[in-house]
Amino acid sequence: AAGMAAPRRLKPLHHVAVSGGTHGNEMSGVYLVKHWLRDRSFAATPFLSNLRAVEKCVRYVGRDLNRTFTAEFLSSAETEDEPYEVGRAREINQTYGPKGSAQAFDFMFDLHNTTANMGTCLIMDSEESLLPMHMCHYIQTHYTQSSCPIYLYKLPGEESYSIDSVAKTGLALELGPQPQGVLKANLFAEMRALMACALDFIELFNTGTVFPAFKTEAYKITGRVDYPRYPDGEISAMVHPKLQDKDFFPLNPEDPIFQPFSGEEILYEGDSTIYPAFINEAAYYEKKVAFVKMEKRTFSIPGLHTLSLSPSP
Amino acid sequence: AAGMAAPRRLKPLHHVAVSGGTHGNEMSGVYLVKHWLRDRSFAATPFLSNLRAVEKCVRYVGRDLNRTFTAEFLSSAETEDEPYEVGRAREINQTYGPKGSAQAFDFMFDLHNTTANMGTCLIMDSEESLLPMHMCHYIQTHYTQSSCPIYLYKLPGEESYSIDSVAKTGLALELGPQPQGVLKANLFAEMRALMACALDFIELFNTGTVFPAFKTEAYKITGRVDYPRYPDGEISAMVHPKLQDKDFFPLNPEDPIFQPFSGEEILYEGDSTIYPAFINEAAYYEKKVAFVKMEKRTFSIPGLHTLSLSPSP
Repeated sequence: AAGMAAPRRLKPLHHVAVSGGTHGNEMSGVYLVKHWLRDRSFAATPFLSNLRAVEKCVRYVGRDLNRTFTAEFLSSAETEDEPYEVGRAREINQTYGPKGSAQAFDFMFDLHNTTANMGTCLIMDSEESLLPMHMCHYIQTHYTQSSCPIYLYKLPGEESYSIDSVAKTGLALELGPQPQGVLKANLFAEMRALMACALDFIELFNTGTVFPAFKTEAYKITGRVDYPRYPDGEISAMVHPKLQDKDFFPLNPEDPIFQPFSGEEILYEGDSTIYPAFINEAAYYEKKVAFVKMEKRTFSIPGLHTLSLSPSP
Repeated sequence: AAGMAAPRRLKPLHHVAVSGGTHGNEMSGVYLVKHWLRDRSFAATPFLSNLRAVEKCVRYVGRDLNRTFTAEFLSSAETEDEPYEVGRAREINQTYGPKGSAQAFDFMFDLHNTTANMGTCLIMDSEESLLPMHMCHYIQTHYTQSSCPIYLYKLPGEESYSIDSVAKTGLALELGPQPQGVLKANLFAEMRALMACALDFIELFNTGTVFPAFKTEAYKITGRVDYPRYPDGEISAMVHPKLQDKDFFPLNPEDPIFQPFSGEEILYEGDSTIYPAFINEAAYYEKKVAFVKMEKRTFSIPGLHTLSLSPSP
């Protein structure tokens, strides 16, 4: 169509990995990957990333593995007292990367759960990653059981620190609400269906399907909000019942956001509407994050075509 | 009334303790007790029981504190390599017990959360504990926001192992569903209101109120059901979506209970109706418990009267 950029051409995806247990107590991915490793019927390469955390059913044993794929950690020399996850990140980088190299896997999925009411959320670094944006659009069009919002997690200037950044490109699935250490059959089924849908997209892409340009809404992180605290650092308020479970709903100035243990409710003091996510996520208490702030934006995404099967016109 | 036993007379309750953080990641009790310790407006004696687990926001650091109040552990000699909780149990026994002695606290509340859909559940050892049964009945009558089922947790022949067994008598509040490590404002408010109601009962009892005999339904444990497992011990099935969240609902023979990762659903093979509880509780995976089986029974409870204020007729 007039004014539309020509479709971008990208190489087919031959090496596709799926990580479960990047956080060892997020059970949908842990048990999906364990199932695929046992069943051997799965089309991609499944692996358990934080093995010790999976064994202990904790998020991590030394430090958050999914914050450890930065140049600093990946290039660090092994030391005796380093956290387990630093060594494990180097191993994963050797097997599925190295990050930024030509040998790296073409795509990595990473399977997560959250205690927040995020539904079936698709997480990627930014809207500039063309192929995952098309994959998300395909999922949104073909997986119609839920809305599958797109969350763009990288703040401006931030280095990609997540496990899927080891591969050339990637996508994280974030399903919730599910308590840590609990495996819910409905979320397991949803994650399995989402993965099947995503692999369908890769198959279609690899076999030459042209994906036209499109416009889509996505949620982009703008900041993080901590819990109110007493002077000694202890939290002094809870997420307000009117904010709880309202991930992806608009939050307006003067809406209540916290309920103190004593005293009056605390209102949102921003000057414009935002969209919250990861509201009251268990793992973010220690990160001092009560919720993430997002803006809702519309992005124009150019078309996509596989390189090998399409000679230039 | 004819045929009714005369009311039993018991001493007033002067020493009442409330434990939070017996499991360090069950946040309603942790933060209620922290609030009462800060606020100092609370009528009873609040304390955090598993201090190290609360600090780390885990269930326990060495072993489950709430399984450590048996004669074996309480009478054990301190050793260098004993789990933290064994020493802490002895400390708590010294402060609020000793268990079974005349100096022991008169009553201990213990505040818990579960990831299961248990609502506002009242837990005590058995229907033979008269005063807690009256307290439960009072709560059921006066706290009308939810149904407050009574769960009698002690299997025949089992020794009382829970923290409240250190006091002369006690009651645990078990509120859910709430993920581990998450503080939900609505459950916090419910637990606070339940405690206020329970303290009202103690006040009325201490000031001479006569509590008449009554009949009540309660759920009594009959056994525990493990997850189906592969020969290597790994779980091979999830709690069935039709069983998930159905705590206290009748479960009939041939009802589905598990959904395998591959293959057909697994049905309940018992020969009579049971009532399940703690369905898919995160902390019970390691205890090999997918749910607890209960029977629903009706109990006739004799009347109750405080000893000091009622001369015999």
